[in-house]
Amino acid sequence: MNDAARNGFYRRLLARHVGPGSGVLEIGAGSGLLSILAARLGAAWVVAVEGSAEMAALARANVEANGLRGRVTILHRLSTELQLRELPRRADVLVSEIFGTLLLGESALDYIADVRERLLTKDAKIIPTFATQYAVPVECETLEQITAVSSWDGIDLSHMMRLQDTASIVFSKQYGFRLNSVPFRFLSEPVALFSLDFSTSTRAALKKVFDFELKTNGKGGRAHAWVFYWIATDGSETMSTSPHDTVDNLPRDTHWGQAIQLIDSEQNLQFPTPLVLKEGETYHFRTYMSEDRISIHIQLLPSSEKTA
Amino acid sequence: MNDAARNGFYRRLLARHVGPGSGVLEIGAGSGLLSILAARLGAAWVVAVEGSAEMAALARANVEANGLRGRVTILHRLSTELQLRELPRRADVLVSEIFGTLLLGESALDYIADVRERLLTKDAKIIPTFATQYAVPVECETLEQITAVSSWDGIDLSHMMRLQDTASIVFSKQYGFRLNSVPFRFLSEPVALFSLDFSTSTRAALKKVFDFELKTNGKGGRAHAWVFYWIATDGSETMSTSPHDTVDNLPRDTHWGQAIQLIDSEQNLQFPTPLVLKEGETYHFRTYMSEDRISIHIQLLPSSEKTA
Repeated sequence: MNDAARNGFYRRLLARHVGPGSGVLEIGAGSGLLSILAARLGAAWVVAVEGSAEMAALARANVEANGLRGRVTILHRLSTELQLRELPRRADVLVSEIFGTLLLGESALDYIADVRERLLTKDAKIIPTFATQYAVPVECETLEQITAVSSWDGIDLSHMMRLQDTASIVFSKQYGFRLNSVPFRFLSEPVALFSLDFSTSTRAALKKVFDFELKTNGKGGRAHAWVFYWIATDGSETMSTSPHDTVDNLPRDTHWGQAIQLIDSEQNLQFPTPLVLKEGETYHFRTYMSEDRISIHIQLLPSSEKTA
Repeated sequence: MNDAARNGFYRRLLARHVGPGSGVLEIGAGSGLLSILAARLGAAWVVAVEGSAEMAALARANVEANGLRGRVTILHRLSTELQLRELPRRADVLVSEIFGTLLLGESALDYIADVRERLLTKDAKIIPTFATQYAVPVECETLEQITAVSSWDGIDLSHMMRLQDTASIVFSKQYGFRLNSVPFRFLSEPVALFSLDFSTSTRAALKKVFDFELKTNGKGGRAHAWVFYWIATDGSETMSTSPHDTVDNLPRDTHWGQAIQLIDSEQNLQFPTPLVLKEGETYHFRTYMSEDRISIHIQLLPSSEKTA
């Protein structure tokens, strides 16, 4: 809530699309901040749903403290439980901030697609409108310091590497540090894994397995991990969780942080080693998304399995 | 395990007390590193217990990889389940690294006191021998940025402060940052809450409620939180989790980090505010320890309740 950049992003988008007469729906109200913003911009009515009873009560207290009782209604329920008859009419604007460290980590697309069909006007504005999930290989020795061990003082400790799991996504917050508080370097241009238009996209339309190729930046380096971040936008304003875009914005770092998948060059589950990305070479990767699109796994393809 | 400062501390202490003929017991072997060090220093035998079956298997693999099979025995059990008949004889040296972010967070004193009576010689060396739990008030605006909110853009959000819980200890890792990666300042000399001599201390002898007074350093400031850290020693070498002592030692920061209790000057559970510590003033606090001494709560005493 102290993420002024995020708050400003929503305020600017709401200011463009909310005016007298607007009916606004919010999914996942939390503190109620976005609904309060919409009401202050002159919306005729705002209805917000919040799945936590405690948070819904606090959002109501915030609405009252700002003199907006009667203009903003906070309902304690999931958006999938909200019925059209509970709204004055279909909403013209849908606003939500239900993204996780991974874009779809909190099932934003499922909730938005459901509401879009049942509760919005045909040409309703969805804020944010577009979003893209990125992945980029990074060189970050800190990650190796934390996650890898081979020996100390001449003692062979390499068996401990069996505990290192390169197949899973972990979160920088689990390790107890912000990625941008330690040295790291992007080793290629970020790869857009998928892009969403919240006014049309469905989960079924997202690919579950796909390949991409990647060219190394500059002189290359040791790729310790994939770092995942996302950008949400209305086409002009953006909100990003990239480690480059969260410098000096601690609340975003500590709220979302980044998702990380350790990179294993050898497909060797017992002794994973960082992948060396050489200058001027092209590498081929395959992406696997879980059924709910919440978990992502990227794997290096041997040159023999290259796509055309 | 990549904490070279910690590893060096144990190596130096073991080198002083382990020699040919020594019988060494380790509690909580983890990787087996400390047992391997003891064996390399010439111990006649080393027995280590480890509560996790997976970790015990990995420790055995590390022992074998270092050619110490037969000299180091890793047993999968809790130390309280270990019987004297399973050792060649009572051990001369007990070594353990079973400390948490709070010194007694992993019940080190209970495990050590139990083993001391049942499995050690009368004059056995316990490594480390002494340990002290410290608390110190810090000024750290970052903590306020993460945990406190009052308004944004003229919108009153103060009701969200009900979520801020100043009674609990949280850990820097939960917030996803290392304390020493952000600006902070000690506002007084650290307070030693309790000191242990592992060769004699018992949990029953630790006070559960006690008062202390504190004088502000320099010009004082806003005390956002108590930071808890500990120092273990044999009387000369030390191992510390102070945020000042973990700079450039990332593995310690991400393993132990620091424990934090937000400070509330008003005893106002709805709207806690940092305590302003004024230059040259003395403040009185009361410390409450839970039955198991794992949780600690420090509370400001109104001047009327001052101790003599």
